[in-house]
Amino acid sequence: MNMIEIILKKREGSILSKQEIDFFVNGYTKGEIPDYQASALLMAIFFQKLNKEETFLLTDAMRHSGDVVDLSKIKGIKVDKHSTGGVGDKTTLIVGPIAAACGVPIAKMSGRGLGFTGGTVDKMESIPGFQTALAEEDFLALVNQNGLAVIGQTAHIAAADKKIYALRDVTGTVDNISLITSSIMSKKLASGSDAIVLDVKCGSGAFMEEEKDAAILAQMMVDIGKADGKKTIALITDMSQPLGFAVGNSLEVIEAIETLKGKGPEDITELSLVLAGYMIYAGEKATCPEEGKEMAEKALADGSALEKLRLFIEGQGGDVKVIDDYSVFPQAKNHLELFAQTSGYISKIEARRIGVASQHTGAGREKKEDMVDLSAGILLAKKLGDVVEKGSLLATVFGNDPEKIKKAAEEAIAAFTIEQRKPEKERLIHAIIS
Amino acid sequence: MNMIEIILKKREGSILSKQEIDFFVNGYTKGEIPDYQASALLMAIFFQKLNKEETFLLTDAMRHSGDVVDLSKIKGIKVDKHSTGGVGDKTTLIVGPIAAACGVPIAKMSGRGLGFTGGTVDKMESIPGFQTALAEEDFLALVNQNGLAVIGQTAHIAAADKKIYALRDVTGTVDNISLITSSIMSKKLASGSDAIVLDVKCGSGAFMEEEKDAAILAQMMVDIGKADGKKTIALITDMSQPLGFAVGNSLEVIEAIETLKGKGPEDITELSLVLAGYMIYAGEKATCPEEGKEMAEKALADGSALEKLRLFIEGQGGDVKVIDDYSVFPQAKNHLELFAQTSGYISKIEARRIGVASQHTGAGREKKEDMVDLSAGILLAKKLGDVVEKGSLLATVFGNDPEKIKKAAEEAIAAFTIEQRKPEKERLIHAIIS
Repeated sequence: MNMIEIILKKREGSILSKQEIDFFVNGYTKGEIPDYQASALLMAIFFQKLNKEETFLLTDAMRHSGDVVDLSKIKGIKVDKHSTGGVGDKTTLIVGPIAAACGVPIAKMSGRGLGFTGGTVDKMESIPGFQTALAEEDFLALVNQNGLAVIGQTAHIAAADKKIYALRDVTGTVDNISLITSSIMSKKLASGSDAIVLDVKCGSGAFMEEEKDAAILAQMMVDIGKADGKKTIALITDMSQPLGFAVGNSLEVIEAIETLKGKGPEDITELSLVLAGYMIYAGEKATCPEEGKEMAEKALADGSALEKLRLFIEGQGGDVKVIDDYSVFPQAKNHLELFAQTSGYISKIEARRIGVASQHTGAGREKKEDMVDLSAGILLAKKLGDVVEKGSLLATVFGNDPEKIKKAAEEAIAAFTIEQRKPEKERLIHAIIS
Repeated sequence: MNMIEIILKKREGSILSKQEIDFFVNGYTKGEIPDYQASALLMAIFFQKLNKEETFLLTDAMRHSGDVVDLSKIKGIKVDKHSTGGVGDKTTLIVGPIAAACGVPIAKMSGRGLGFTGGTVDKMESIPGFQTALAEEDFLALVNQNGLAVIGQTAHIAAADKKIYALRDVTGTVDNISLITSSIMSKKLASGSDAIVLDVKCGSGAFMEEEKDAAILAQMMVDIGKADGKKTIALITDMSQPLGFAVGNSLEVIEAIETLKGKGPEDITELSLVLAGYMIYAGEKATCPEEGKEMAEKALADGSALEKLRLFIEGQGGDVKVIDDYSVFPQAKNHLELFAQTSGYISKIEARRIGVASQHTGAGREKKEDMVDLSAGILLAKKLGDVVEKGSLLATVFGNDPEKIKKAAEEAIAAFTIEQRKPEKERLIHAIIS
């Protein structure tokens, strides 16, 4: 078998065999196949696509390219939740404690990654003392003890994905349904949970801007999860404006804590309850997602979810004082307020631009080596449909470097559109695929 | 400007600007753009194509990526001839002396390259003592003195092409009209001749199997040459069976000498006379190609072309005894004869398979580092349409390594088809594009 023949075969639109896909994934992971051949194949895949069977095979090969985690020492049905990524999406920090409070064990493996803000691991590390570099044994023990723990994802999980994703990122081959699916699902399947709830975003701040593309991606991921015998459910949710008001690392953790106190923004609260409902249902603690949602509402109302957060932070060495005193978080040295230039309704807050602005503040990585500024980010003051007067506060940009704040502010202000007509509200949940 | 944006732009089917094409060619030549981004762009180009303007710009950027040769010290209109490559194509060794004998100066820059046999430089080096590593001054002086010289192409001519071609070769991006055009024409334009005659092959042994594809390639190359103010003419010629009987290095030089003695195979003789006719016309020594062909026939008949060959070999340090005594060439230690298994007409001799067989003997390079076996190759005994009896000699495989000869023989015998019906003869010259 040789790589040039595999490239030519896909280039001509033929179906790759299991042997050929394994040859590519294993050879590339081991460094036997050079980057330039891998990128040529990825671009050929972009144009000729992979069918469902090839996507299954690719995912499976990537899943087995590194360690496969064994969570059998954790009692109960472990449920994982994954979001395809959006702006201001801090739901993991909310649904984890809620589901755990309802008896569903959450053993979360999370990354840092490139993006508008840091990953879940970075966000949690904005809590002083919080550790995510756990030994596997300690991680499993924490889940059994508290119902919830987060571990930093190592390079040994789906090793092929790490290399392939880095290459896609610099060769214009990111946005292909099969490549996105294999990247996400290889890690999910290697991470060992029994059921998976996927939050697939659509809208201007998402990978998939169109709902129909998001639906195709969601269906592909659900099919792959189910083919592996795992209960897999996908929700297609709105990402046309940022979720909640906070975009950043500590800013998002604070908003998550507020939500667990029952004082969160309407959209974040609603989405978290729906997602948690599906997780509780997938974990077989409720007979239907609606019952799951009711249980989630109760866990929020009676403080048991907030109590789970406290145990979770404590278990991983974090300072629990943050829950009651947000000044314990790292504080940004500078901020800049953005004001409306005209009166009217907020008719658009482009999620992508707010995300890019957040990245400019230093809250997200542009390159792998970048340090994340945990205190930086954007705090919106208004959401879609809100009425503003000329001079009303639209958003505050936080950061430490005045130059970065200035650059971020220019991008952030451009994300807003103010019109005279009240805009239609986007549905938060577009569809459920299971 | 950044390479990911250029890749995405072409991937989406947009037209690249001069600045973007220059950025890619210059950055890649200097090593500032990595192979994996270049190969992703090349694959995107394969799918989305380049238009004529982009192909012009790519060719021009590649032409100026290295040295541009100045042939102004050579008197007269310098004419270059290029073949897109076929099996048994030794016409350069024949048309050079003919055109020179008719007063057209030939300053030929030639490569080694990968392929079924070595390049023109390798073939000439099968003549003991023949040197192609000339100083530029000596090269120009030789053309002025003898009317004809060949110099090995350096890495400094169209430097981008050397890198891009090597990458295309291992990433499944060879067969694209614009990439082939830019590769050939960047070198031709940098090599400094005033006029160019292109021999574009079609058929089983050629880059372009179909005549219509060869015609598109030919038209693109002619347009580019003309846009640069050079008289450029392309002939589309047959490569469904090997040209002549000899495929190899010394074997082809011997056949070229025989042809210059007037004893060459019919197809090689005819093609050489037609090509030389166009070269003489392009060099303004004849008023039309037909007059050029008549002059070529005369130069062959009166021995003046053979005399030019003698001066040419002598000028570059070669042993002129080869012309009269072929035993002076390196001799293969072993050979294997291939016989017909049945009686009938030769209805097919697949050029590509004979080429691959030649490569198996060691006559051509599979990798850049490979040494070429100058004595190895295939000598056909029959051509298309010939009658054979069971047991008739079809071909002889020459080489030094018995294992290689065996492998080559298996491939060579499979190239022949014998049928009971006399086959149609392919036209040698399919079309002229000027």
